[in-house]
Amino acid sequence: MKNLKTRAISAAIFAVVMLFGLLYNALSFKILFTIIAIGAIHELINICIGKEEKNSGTRKIFYTLLACIPLLLVWSESFDLSKCIYLLMLCISVVFIAELYMQSVYPFQNVGVITLSVFYVALPIVGLILLSNKDGNFSNHLAVGLLFLTWSNDTGAYFAGSKFGKNKFFPRISPNKTWEGTIGGGLLCIITAIIFSRLFTEYCIIDWIVFGLIVSVFGSLGDLVESMLKRSFDIKDSGNIMPGHGGFLDRFDAFIFILPFVCFYFKFFH
Amino acid sequence: MKNLKTRAISAAIFAVVMLFGLLYNALSFKILFTIIAIGAIHELINICIGKEEKNSGTRKIFYTLLACIPLLLVWSESFDLSKCIYLLMLCISVVFIAELYMQSVYPFQNVGVITLSVFYVALPIVGLILLSNKDGNFSNHLAVGLLFLTWSNDTGAYFAGSKFGKNKFFPRISPNKTWEGTIGGGLLCIITAIIFSRLFTEYCIIDWIVFGLIVSVFGSLGDLVESMLKRSFDIKDSGNIMPGHGGFLDRFDAFIFILPFVCFYFKFFH
Repeated sequence: MKNLKTRAISAAIFAVVMLFGLLYNALSFKILFTIIAIGAIHELINICIGKEEKNSGTRKIFYTLLACIPLLLVWSESFDLSKCIYLLMLCISVVFIAELYMQSVYPFQNVGVITLSVFYVALPIVGLILLSNKDGNFSNHLAVGLLFLTWSNDTGAYFAGSKFGKNKFFPRISPNKTWEGTIGGGLLCIITAIIFSRLFTEYCIIDWIVFGLIVSVFGSLGDLVESMLKRSFDIKDSGNIMPGHGGFLDRFDAFIFILPFVCFYFKFFH
Repeated sequence: MKNLKTRAISAAIFAVVMLFGLLYNALSFKILFTIIAIGAIHELINICIGKEEKNSGTRKIFYTLLACIPLLLVWSESFDLSKCIYLLMLCISVVFIAELYMQSVYPFQNVGVITLSVFYVALPIVGLILLSNKDGNFSNHLAVGLLFLTWSNDTGAYFAGSKFGKNKFFPRISPNKTWEGTIGGGLLCIITAIIFSRLFTEYCIIDWIVFGLIVSVFGSLGDLVESMLKRSFDIKDSGNIMPGHGGFLDRFDAFIFILPFVCFYFKFFH
């Protein structure tokens, strides 16, 4: 009972922080997503770097900072992705040199975790921040829409799964997910997308249906990918930001995973 | 004796192929560096992906192709690094999904090896190809200069080390390297840089001295980084392109490692 109360209180605080960050202004929006990305990257690095490495605590902070370089640069008005990549390339080489002197046990795997975090978390969030700041005009509509689509996908899957769930979707990784739940989530997600197309008209109905399809297909897969991460390292939660709700990666796994598909759609089909 | 003959013949073939690729025309240049990059990436992936993974042979080819995406795109006239990064981001997400279905033992480490290859080999070589094709005009001068600087650094280090070598430079990783050799290599490298500044005058003397310093400091460290890779996976050579000379990574370790520093210099100080 006490556990349920703690969960409810922390969920309420989470909702308030999210809504404030999303809706207040461009600065709160950037701060919110920078914090989410730093948190998720730190958790990923924390999971992947083994205890065999010396000074693993300091190392993890240092690696997190490096993987966050694109997120720190995107705060600048004159952000240039290709310059950012050149800077990252240089930093990665410097880390290799540092690995030499730190006598690492798994030097290449350590650097691999940094580059992985860049592609799995940092660049997708940078892509979202850039899409939300077109030609100097800030709009939170895309992020708000995508977050609500992700939540409606989860909610639909939960209710449809509880009511009709029979056929397991991916039992090896996520034993509770069913095909019925996944389809129910997808349906609610598409309905939500159609509603959003009436609210936020700077994206047309086709855009919104594409977002809905991306979220319903890749959101569910993003969930599974994060579960695969936890299973392969034999842990239960990625972190513990809020009692009973896991970590940043647990909360934003589906959302972060859909962003590369959304960015790709804008970059190549818009 | 037979071994020495094999080594000499393969070294001669190597020199001819390198000179032809470098000097013939823009196409032979691009083909040469694309082959070097594909070879080095394949070796890196081959070293890092364990035998525990199912279908590890097919997997390695597939991962190599993915890490080579920037190299394939750079062949296009309208190459755009930021578009390339968005495409890579999407591909990385698709690989995560593939890892789910391939029942990988180390899914995140596998994807990490791909992203690592992108930063350690693919993007540096792409940077060199871009620097050699400024505004549609091809010039091999930078690549020729940097390769000769790398070789003169090695040669100087070899002779100075054999003659005066006493104090070990980095015994844990490379027991034969000495401080005397490293300094000798650096000196010959700077002298070669000054000679090149007279030959290839589109870069000024300061540029050439910067290249010389980069090669003498980071070339030697790049050697050590590749030795660290081999030591951490307990192998002797990265591959076997030519009998007695090791693989692509063994041959081009120092050269690939200096490229991020050279690209950074051009992007931020030129």
